[in-house]
Amino acid sequence: MILNNSNIDVSHIEAEELQNKIGNIVKIHGSIYKIRLMSGFAFVILRTKRAFVQCIYSKEYTNIDIDKIIENSSVIITGYVAEEIRSKLGYELRINDIEILSIPIDAPPVVINNNVIPASLETILDFRPITIRNEHERAIFKLQEGLCRGIREFLFSNLFTEIHSPKIVYAGAEGGANIFKLDYFGKEAYLAQSPQFYKQMLVGAYERVFEIAPVYRAEKHDTSRHLNEYISVDFEMGFIENFADIISMETNMLKFVIEFLKEKYVNEIKILKIELPNIAEIPCITFCDAKELVRNTYNRKTKDLHDFEPEEERLLCDIIKKEYGSDFVFVTHYPSSKRPFYAMDDNENPEVTLSFDLLFRGIEITTGGQRIHDYEKQVEKMKRRGMNIELFESYLMMHKYGMPPHGGLGLGLERFTMCLLNETNVRYASMFPRDMKRLTP
Amino acid sequence: MILNNSNIDVSHIEAEELQNKIGNIVKIHGSIYKIRLMSGFAFVILRTKRAFVQCIYSKEYTNIDIDKIIENSSVIITGYVAEEIRSKLGYELRINDIEILSIPIDAPPVVINNNVIPASLETILDFRPITIRNEHERAIFKLQEGLCRGIREFLFSNLFTEIHSPKIVYAGAEGGANIFKLDYFGKEAYLAQSPQFYKQMLVGAYERVFEIAPVYRAEKHDTSRHLNEYISVDFEMGFIENFADIISMETNMLKFVIEFLKEKYVNEIKILKIELPNIAEIPCITFCDAKELVRNTYNRKTKDLHDFEPEEERLLCDIIKKEYGSDFVFVTHYPSSKRPFYAMDDNENPEVTLSFDLLFRGIEITTGGQRIHDYEKQVEKMKRRGMNIELFESYLMMHKYGMPPHGGLGLGLERFTMCLLNETNVRYASMFPRDMKRLTP
Repeated sequence: MILNNSNIDVSHIEAEELQNKIGNIVKIHGSIYKIRLMSGFAFVILRTKRAFVQCIYSKEYTNIDIDKIIENSSVIITGYVAEEIRSKLGYELRINDIEILSIPIDAPPVVINNNVIPASLETILDFRPITIRNEHERAIFKLQEGLCRGIREFLFSNLFTEIHSPKIVYAGAEGGANIFKLDYFGKEAYLAQSPQFYKQMLVGAYERVFEIAPVYRAEKHDTSRHLNEYISVDFEMGFIENFADIISMETNMLKFVIEFLKEKYVNEIKILKIELPNIAEIPCITFCDAKELVRNTYNRKTKDLHDFEPEEERLLCDIIKKEYGSDFVFVTHYPSSKRPFYAMDDNENPEVTLSFDLLFRGIEITTGGQRIHDYEKQVEKMKRRGMNIELFESYLMMHKYGMPPHGGLGLGLERFTMCLLNETNVRYASMFPRDMKRLTP
Repeated sequence: MILNNSNIDVSHIEAEELQNKIGNIVKIHGSIYKIRLMSGFAFVILRTKRAFVQCIYSKEYTNIDIDKIIENSSVIITGYVAEEIRSKLGYELRINDIEILSIPIDAPPVVINNNVIPASLETILDFRPITIRNEHERAIFKLQEGLCRGIREFLFSNLFTEIHSPKIVYAGAEGGANIFKLDYFGKEAYLAQSPQFYKQMLVGAYERVFEIAPVYRAEKHDTSRHLNEYISVDFEMGFIENFADIISMETNMLKFVIEFLKEKYVNEIKILKIELPNIAEIPCITFCDAKELVRNTYNRKTKDLHDFEPEEERLLCDIIKKEYGSDFVFVTHYPSSKRPFYAMDDNENPEVTLSFDLLFRGIEITTGGQRIHDYEKQVEKMKRRGMNIELFESYLMMHKYGMPPHGGLGLGLERFTMCLLNETNVRYASMFPRDMKRLTP
């Protein structure tokens, strides 16, 4: 039955409303994702904001010539929502009419409408403005949105205040060579490596603060785990009893976020075929014990006694997974020599700090710890490290005029996403990654 | 009555729970904001995460020596919540005990515990790590948090996807000289002036996207309205019929946000003594008509025929407020010559664009409009402007392979905050402003 609906007032709806419109004629807009010609009819897949809608083209329902419909056109489809038990969704949209809003001038140079794009990571990234239109690619960053939303919801409910700290700064948080320099009206400025100084200062005002924003590392690491610009999820909290409070807050945050995804991002979890981790209590192990555990289990000599090699992190996670069934492990008490000047040393053993990393499926995704809040102790530690106190006048202002015991952490959003996806390259989890070789698109 | 509560198990609570604890002994932590010595007793104001709690010190209730309690100490107070009809809140916290967690080494060089800090803006900003502890200063940025939360909530409910675009870029969105340059591993890179290119690309995948993130303008404007780094609230939406859809979305967003603040930020609205604007329909006026209206009303000659002078924006807002009672006005159809290359020209008059600014209490807070979605038209406009098409290959990819009609806007978070506060300098609405002279703290 071909309907002449030019005079019918049909409602223009979202894809998510379709299931409630069976038996009705509706309008729905989107881009033509894929046309699959069958014998006597065609499937026309429409990409909408979040869902993909399967429409049926047949001469039985419309006068349109299917050859005139081009993939990647922006259209408004008018159609009849018919009950169809053979369809996964229980209905299908029978096309009556297609209004074309815009058409592409060419077919994409990469196939973007398969389940997974049949191209290398390099190609996917080179053509990102269109490869992001792929169902799988698009779902990755929708899921990443879910991580940020879940994190925010959790932190707000725990009375954190959201802050915006400047990214153009006069000094780096960690110092060192891994910092981008900038000409700032004739002065030398830097891109912030982390909001560390600012979030500490703001603990002095709001007690609990967080920020989700870009940070910059000029590290010359051309690895599958490093980006030179990434999104850091930072929180910092005052009035802690010890650094276990921070570990506990992060554990609860992760639990909340996983449940949040399960509730609100079902669609993406399905598309991406993700197995979400179960989080109960996350095992904690000291850095020293972890080193020894890996050494003994794998009869493996470590070169670096003060830090983990990536391979050791992977092996440790394997052991923990086998022993405790956990995808996560907190490694605590990192050596002072490898931690920044603001890290609080352990009273019982000043060689180590009250700090931790969180490893997830073999990769470090968080670094955190308690900070020094006492002015004299902070100045003393800086002097021991040969630092010029005068350069840190505004940083030390908070210590001077009173700070509560506090600590916090930074979580790399792309690394977290990568590990959730079980991907092996962090670039899969960054829409427009920046690395030593890549500055475009 | 002096209680010896060392053996009593009292609950450690948030300030917001106090009103439900009348008749109980509780523990509450925070920083000593102010001590006001009265005859025979003292008021001790405790700053907590969000609230200020008035505590009563009296020898009647405690053995502590008040002279040993120092402002800006971090403490845990144990006290009895007594009904007290003379107090504004209906109760008071009688101090039994104070556990001191940390003390400052000195008194602040600026008075930070008055209603308003008795110092210049410059001083407030120089000492920001501690001036942010002031009740009034702190409330400004808590309110700003509310703006972002409200905006996000509105945009999510309208099916926008939150994105993160890179801030280190290979080309500026608007081009021109007002762009910070960066040495990126031997290549020249820039700091993004806006997420314009990226949000448009992502409309191609998600239809509706938004981002709240820093942007960078190397403008040599040393005015009360300009910052060189600020937070831009950007959204972009596809499948629009015309640019009135964008105006309508922003109007609804503003209405939502104001209601959101009224509901969730009552405390800050009170502290800051803000009069929130009433938003019904926001008047729209074309750029030409607006120019003429100001010229005729004030018998004023304009120097710049293609743009507004700040004074004209102020005067226009005065007229609109008087005529329509609105604090906001949309000015539409700005001259093409003053709008970027991606702005869509008006078919009926190609001298003007389908674009708008939103003015609020005399200041432009938003620029938006419809963009060109057709590849040929976009290339043609770029060529007319003498632009090198090859440099924009990845930008033009989206047009080439199909884009829906779309448009969007950018809203300056600090300017919006400033106008809400009725402040005259945008630096009051930035925690750590960056301008030509200021790079610290």
